[in-house]
Amino acid sequence: MSVPFEERSDRLQGYRGAARDALNRFEIGVWSEVELVNDAGSAFAGVILPRSETADDLHIVIKLFTGYNVGVAAHRIASAKEIGYRRAVYRIPEKDFPYDSQKKNVTLLGTGGTIASRLDYRTGAVIPAFTPGELYGAVPELADIANLTTFKLFGVFSENMGPVQYIALAKAIGEEIEKGVDGIVIGHGTDTMSHTGAILSFMVQQSPVPIVLVGSQRSSDRPSSDAALNLMNAVRTAAECDIAEVMLCMFGPTSDRNDLLHRGTRCRKMHSSYRSTFRTVGATPLAMVSRTLNEKGSHFTYFTDDYIKRDPKRKPIINPAFEEKVTIQYYYPNFNPDIIDALSGIGYRGLVIAGTGLGHVNKPLYPALERAIQKGMTVAMSVQTLWGYAQMYVYDTGRDLLELGVIPLDNMLPETAFMKLSWVLGQTDDPVKIREMLTTPINHEITPREPHNGYLILQGGLPEVDEFVQKHWK
Amino acid sequence: MSVPFEERSDRLQGYRGAARDALNRFEIGVWSEVELVNDAGSAFAGVILPRSETADDLHIVIKLFTGYNVGVAAHRIASAKEIGYRRAVYRIPEKDFPYDSQKKNVTLLGTGGTIASRLDYRTGAVIPAFTPGELYGAVPELADIANLTTFKLFGVFSENMGPVQYIALAKAIGEEIEKGVDGIVIGHGTDTMSHTGAILSFMVQQSPVPIVLVGSQRSSDRPSSDAALNLMNAVRTAAECDIAEVMLCMFGPTSDRNDLLHRGTRCRKMHSSYRSTFRTVGATPLAMVSRTLNEKGSHFTYFTDDYIKRDPKRKPIINPAFEEKVTIQYYYPNFNPDIIDALSGIGYRGLVIAGTGLGHVNKPLYPALERAIQKGMTVAMSVQTLWGYAQMYVYDTGRDLLELGVIPLDNMLPETAFMKLSWVLGQTDDPVKIREMLTTPINHEITPREPHNGYLILQGGLPEVDEFVQKHWK
Repeated sequence: MSVPFEERSDRLQGYRGAARDALNRFEIGVWSEVELVNDAGSAFAGVILPRSETADDLHIVIKLFTGYNVGVAAHRIASAKEIGYRRAVYRIPEKDFPYDSQKKNVTLLGTGGTIASRLDYRTGAVIPAFTPGELYGAVPELADIANLTTFKLFGVFSENMGPVQYIALAKAIGEEIEKGVDGIVIGHGTDTMSHTGAILSFMVQQSPVPIVLVGSQRSSDRPSSDAALNLMNAVRTAAECDIAEVMLCMFGPTSDRNDLLHRGTRCRKMHSSYRSTFRTVGATPLAMVSRTLNEKGSHFTYFTDDYIKRDPKRKPIINPAFEEKVTIQYYYPNFNPDIIDALSGIGYRGLVIAGTGLGHVNKPLYPALERAIQKGMTVAMSVQTLWGYAQMYVYDTGRDLLELGVIPLDNMLPETAFMKLSWVLGQTDDPVKIREMLTTPINHEITPREPHNGYLILQGGLPEVDEFVQKHWK
Repeated sequence: MSVPFEERSDRLQGYRGAARDALNRFEIGVWSEVELVNDAGSAFAGVILPRSETADDLHIVIKLFTGYNVGVAAHRIASAKEIGYRRAVYRIPEKDFPYDSQKKNVTLLGTGGTIASRLDYRTGAVIPAFTPGELYGAVPELADIANLTTFKLFGVFSENMGPVQYIALAKAIGEEIEKGVDGIVIGHGTDTMSHTGAILSFMVQQSPVPIVLVGSQRSSDRPSSDAALNLMNAVRTAAECDIAEVMLCMFGPTSDRNDLLHRGTRCRKMHSSYRSTFRTVGATPLAMVSRTLNEKGSHFTYFTDDYIKRDPKRKPIINPAFEEKVTIQYYYPNFNPDIIDALSGIGYRGLVIAGTGLGHVNKPLYPALERAIQKGMTVAMSVQTLWGYAQMYVYDTGRDLLELGVIPLDNMLPETAFMKLSWVLGQTDDPVKIREMLTTPINHEITPREPHNGYLILQGGLPEVDEFVQKHWK
């Protein structure tokens, strides 16, 4: 309120139509701190954000004082009053990223996820940092870690990633490796980051250097943001880590200085909003990467030595195949055969079932699965418990499914199985080859056993928890 | 080998056709301890079990020395030799279950899950204990806890449970409550136990007494079996616990003396073979039930007081409605609109999406969802992270889905949502009523917040873990 309306040149920045009308009607604008109530009686308190040109004209976007951005439908606003005004300077200062010939060279490929914007870019309020100079301005510590080159491949929300993007990414990775970079970071939204980790594990094999997916669960203007931490640790992993695999570098649960490195084929997002959302499933994470040095003088604490080691001389195999007519079905009680028949009818060539228990579905599905398999559909079985194995030899019913031709996937995660089946069917329609490719592990998507501390939690270095879990969790 | 073949009257018990031929060919039989290799070179060592009359004639069933039963295809056996013989007396001794007028009365309804058989009943090798006398013979401690009456409602594998069974169960529960029992136990396979817990939470409301689902992950002939522990704790819960809700009583992760009580609407099976497989999601379990007394002199340690209390005078509402044309689809990248159109085309009236992140699907699905909704399909959004909330107001894309008519389900679990939608659509086709019923919680299927220690793990009473989780997991 300290600044008169006429002096606020950006008062309606990006707002059009009904949204703009509402701002005028209630005498509020961009950077107004407001208390607002809608026609359902819901109250919102926060700061009105500017909008991007491509946003709709129906909503006013408010950064709540709690941190989240929400969109309020303009036509549903019952009352709104300005309680303060604080123009935020969220511009990212651009500085020349210094080059140091002693440092490793890392390429950052952008797909559209939030990396180091001042506000969550999905709302369109601010363009995220992306050039090396912007990233240096936002996270100056990056220059201490590596020399950074950036390419914006596309700008899509994580849920809109698909084969077009996967293929482009795989090819871009191949080109960067050809150039001789020391590691690659991929900025990615968190929602489907593990899906991309899985498909890239198949499309890009035998990489000589680390390929590190990174994102953030909280935008960098929130006090608890994980954006800068994740980015720094991802760049360090690309530059220095010994593990030359496709990995996800994401927050804890360890501490606020560390990230965990999850293998692309073996992890999953487990919470819609917590920072500590990714879990390696049925294994321990590969390593912890820390901002500070551990007692051995390294930023990396390796949890296993069963990984593909960095080797600049190794030639990668880039194989970007993808069949789109593949689906996953999570079994639920009374799952009706008409869905299997419908999928077969519209030409689906691949089906991953996430069955119950050790890999079961109900009896009425058997004839439909048999029909689909006869028609050429590949049907594979994973488990919806996520942890543990499909063990279809244990019960008669499992054996019946095996005899119909259902392929058991052991402990391959359902989403990893979806990606692998899509990739396999993009290369062959020979049933023998499909089965062999699907069940022969490429990078730990099937493992011979799961360690007791690979269930639900990495114990974060508390030995009493480890002992407890060993005793009571199996 | 100590017993000559001719003296083994049960040598071929239950075996027919190819399986019987193989036993004769290799001079092995029921109760032979064998070492067997199949044509793929896989080796099996264990005891050959008898088969039931209804089993197929293609497999020989072996209880491996590791505990699991496997079926080996008879025509694929390359070699087999008897290394021992030990006739097992797995008959369950039947004793009169004592009646004590001082004790509470509990009814046990059987659906087919393993309760206290000596061998896993799914293999058909042995009929599980089920009459009160058999249960008393198998687990004599039961008589110290309550007076037991048993009814075998059906004998189906957990994955074959469906509306027919749910409706029969709801009605049987109503009848038992009418008779004035102090509590009800339902024996159930573990694979879909949480699904049954969810639907019964809607079909049976305002129960005056506890309704406790129980099963076991390991059959009772295995040294680490949880069968007797779970059964005893379930009967005790039915008899004495103050929580008059639909609950699951299952093993840990706490200790070998305790089970946890999970609310029917808020839990999920998370491991295909561990005993400690069920987790309450987005909340803490309701209580811990122990064989021994806690420091307060009770078998029950309550973790919350927000539950429906036992009240013998309360009249239950039995409402066994179910619409079968409902499905869940877990979103995956590149999910194609043709599946939505196909589901709509074959008459599906309800669709629960398990979306990514805060409740997203890709853009190409929007027109198909709009078409389906226009045609009368109810489409509701949950999250595939399992933990956390669908928060569709946060991003433009979520708001677009809301405007198409997609109903956000907050933190309702996808499978619970499937059961609730099936139940709601079994009662009405009025869109306003459907939305209201679906989003108005009946028993904590939607909660206003999730506690920090409701994510992935109950901390089992280790305060340092609790502190750690509070700090680093959110």
